[in-house]
Amino acid sequence: MNPALASIRIVLVATSHAGNIGATARAMLTMGLGQLVLVRPRSFPDAEADARASGATAVLAAARVVATLDEAIAGSALAVGLSARPREFAGRVLPIREAAAAAIAHTAHGDVALVFGTEMSGLSNDELARCGIVATIPTNPGFASLNLAAAVQVAAYELRVAAGEGGVWSAPRFAPATTDEIAALDAHARRTLTDMRFLHPRLPRRLMPRLQRLFGRAALEREEVNILRGILARIDDILRR
Amino acid sequence: MNPALASIRIVLVATSHAGNIGATARAMLTMGLGQLVLVRPRSFPDAEADARASGATAVLAAARVVATLDEAIAGSALAVGLSARPREFAGRVLPIREAAAAAIAHTAHGDVALVFGTEMSGLSNDELARCGIVATIPTNPGFASLNLAAAVQVAAYELRVAAGEGGVWSAPRFAPATTDEIAALDAHARRTLTDMRFLHPRLPRRLMPRLQRLFGRAALEREEVNILRGILARIDDILRR
Repeated sequence: MNPALASIRIVLVATSHAGNIGATARAMLTMGLGQLVLVRPRSFPDAEADARASGATAVLAAARVVATLDEAIAGSALAVGLSARPREFAGRVLPIREAAAAAIAHTAHGDVALVFGTEMSGLSNDELARCGIVATIPTNPGFASLNLAAAVQVAAYELRVAAGEGGVWSAPRFAPATTDEIAALDAHARRTLTDMRFLHPRLPRRLMPRLQRLFGRAALEREEVNILRGILARIDDILRR
Repeated sequence: MNPALASIRIVLVATSHAGNIGATARAMLTMGLGQLVLVRPRSFPDAEADARASGATAVLAAARVVATLDEAIAGSALAVGLSARPREFAGRVLPIREAAAAAIAHTAHGDVALVFGTEMSGLSNDELARCGIVATIPTNPGFASLNLAAAVQVAAYELRVAAGEGGVWSAPRFAPATTDEIAALDAHARRTLTDMRFLHPRLPRRLMPRLQRLFGRAALEREEVNILRGILARIDDILRR
């Protein structure tokens, strides 16, 4: 497990819907987070939370339930409070991308808590005042109603990327064509296209440079060169009939 | 509405759970997206979709239902297929952040479709082959089970940021303290701390530079300077008793 991500606590304050707790556990685990702290949840444990966790039940099983926000953030090096709404007395307000980078950097000093308020009204001003950074997710001003677990998903995603775990799968690399193989393909194409009377040797215009540009951009593989030369050879056969 | 975001189509292929369609509509609207296309949904319209849309019902009302992926992406300038799983024959595979930037850039040429497969197995290889770019969201290799609407949420968030709409609210700016006001605070603090015998004028050590550093980093406002000087003045009164 990435040590920075292992130092992140997700704190949900006074969550109303148990389904959101389950969906949060799932969102967390998809991004490699494991520490969930619940402050006064309306219902937990709850079958709806288990259902929505969809396999991330280990996160629910390890969740801590506490009575106050202070207990939830005790011992942490930094608390980051999420807020969708502008707050008059907020100190340091950062977009979630920058807040995630700050949170990951801060894990060098201990746990970092990301604190999410209730579904209806978010964190109170008093709760937000306990947080060193206020983080906010950019939203449509006309419809800023981000679901609680969706907000956790975006934050957890940004934390994962900030922790250097933003790598993704890539398609398998096959053997790339060598310079000589590509030059042979160019020559073959030029010969066949001329034989086909598609390319006029005296008036070549921009056809070959355009094809070369296409082949170059595609970063041709050896097998692809062989396929293309096979097609050309078949045309050569047909022309020779 | 941001014109690039208005050119984004979210395409859901063969969605099993109507709730995910509603949650997708909500995720879209929070990020300013409005075009939803449903390919062979199991159930739509559906009360569960309405419930999970939580106010984003206009997106559901405007959703198009079609029979094939080809219909869904017809007339688009680019289709981007989301895939969590590695695919042997994928062409251009990009992390969602880069794919979102490419998608937004491509809206200059027309609509861009982001295509999401089924909850159980994602897009088929044939469906993915219809997409010019394969996008993937970085996830925990041990638990990559991102909920469909959660994947749409992350993609829509990245599209919003890529479209230049990543700005967030900031706390209101009060009048900053001027250089003179801060210099007067420094002088007052030095005087009072000396009177308090906390600062020794012959052995000032690093106290004043540390306080000046703190004041500078905090970017003090005028009213805050007045509060701090009020506290100092109260100490002065006490010392004078």
